[in-house]
Amino acid sequence: MQINVATADDWPAIWPFLREIVAAGETYTYPRDLSEDLAREMWMLAPPSRTVVAVDEAGTVLGTAKMNPNHMGPAAHIASASFMVDPRFSGRGVGRALGTYVLDWARAEGFRAMQFNAVVETNTRAVALWKSLGFTVIGTLPEGFQHPTKGFVGLHIMHRAL
Amino acid sequence: MQINVATADDWPAIWPFLREIVAAGETYTYPRDLSEDLAREMWMLAPPSRTVVAVDEAGTVLGTAKMNPNHMGPAAHIASASFMVDPRFSGRGVGRALGTYVLDWARAEGFRAMQFNAVVETNTRAVALWKSLGFTVIGTLPEGFQHPTKGFVGLHIMHRAL
Repeated sequence: MQINVATADDWPAIWPFLREIVAAGETYTYPRDLSEDLAREMWMLAPPSRTVVAVDEAGTVLGTAKMNPNHMGPAAHIASASFMVDPRFSGRGVGRALGTYVLDWARAEGFRAMQFNAVVETNTRAVALWKSLGFTVIGTLPEGFQHPTKGFVGLHIMHRAL
Repeated sequence: MQINVATADDWPAIWPFLREIVAAGETYTYPRDLSEDLAREMWMLAPPSRTVVAVDEAGTVLGTAKMNPNHMGPAAHIASASFMVDPRFSGRGVGRALGTYVLDWARAEGFRAMQFNAVVETNTRAVALWKSLGFTVIGTLPEGFQHPTKGFVGLHIMHRAL
C-alpha cells in the first residue's frame, strides 16, 4: 500500500465509495444526499491543507484522507483530518496507514495537536483505531448524531498531542 | 436594550469593536490581523443562519451575535453561536441578553442543542455566563489556544440541550 497526494484524476475513484459512506448516514456529519460538486469541493483540499489516497500495487484506490487546520488565529496549531475507506477494502489496515500518515503530516507542518470534531460513538472500529493511535475522547456531545437505526447517539471529540 | 436582526447598515458600528476584540487575541480563534472583508463575510450571516445586534435606546450598537448550524447531515440538529460585546459596554448584561436570544432562536428553529466549539478557558466571564445559562463544559482541548500573555491555555467545548 502506498499513500499519495490526491490529484483531480483520483476523484472518479474516490467519489463512488465516498458517496456510499455518506449516503449510509452512519458515520459522517455530511448531508446524506451530498452532491458530487459539493463533495469534491469539501474533500479535495489544496495546500496548505492536503488530501491523499491510499493505493494498492495495481493503483486501485483503497481509501482517502484529508487533513487541514482545525482552527485559526491563536488556535491555528490544532489540525484535523477525515478518513474514508472503501468498504470493499476494510480490514486491511488502510485506516491505520492513513491515520499514521496524517499524524506525520501534522507534526511536519508544525501543528501541536490533532483534533477530530465528530466521531460517531457507534462507529466503534474508528474509535478503537484512533485510541490505538494515541487519541483520547476529550468530550462527547450527547445525542449529537442521529443514526439511521440507533437513534440519537453521542458524537466524540477526540484529541492527540503531537 | 433591544435585539434586532443585523443589516449591512450595522456593519460600520460592529467592525471597530469586533476588530479590537480579535486583535487582542485573548478570546477568539480568528486571525488577529483579520481583514475587514473576511470579518464581514464570517460575521454577517444570511438565513437560515442569523446575525443580530443589541442596541440601546439611542440606537448605539452594544454588541452582536451570530447563530448558525454547527454540523450538517445527521448532526444538523446542533446549533452554534458567537458573541462580541463592545468592551465599552461590558457589565451591562449585553452578553446575557444575546445568549438568551440565541437559545430562543435555536429552539424556535428546531435545533435540539447548542454547542460552542472554542471557549477560551481564561475567558472566565464568558465561561461563567454560559454556565449560568445552562451550558456545561463537555470537554477541554488541552493547550488549544495560545494566549498572548498566559501562554497555551485550554479551549472549552460547551453544550446545552434545548
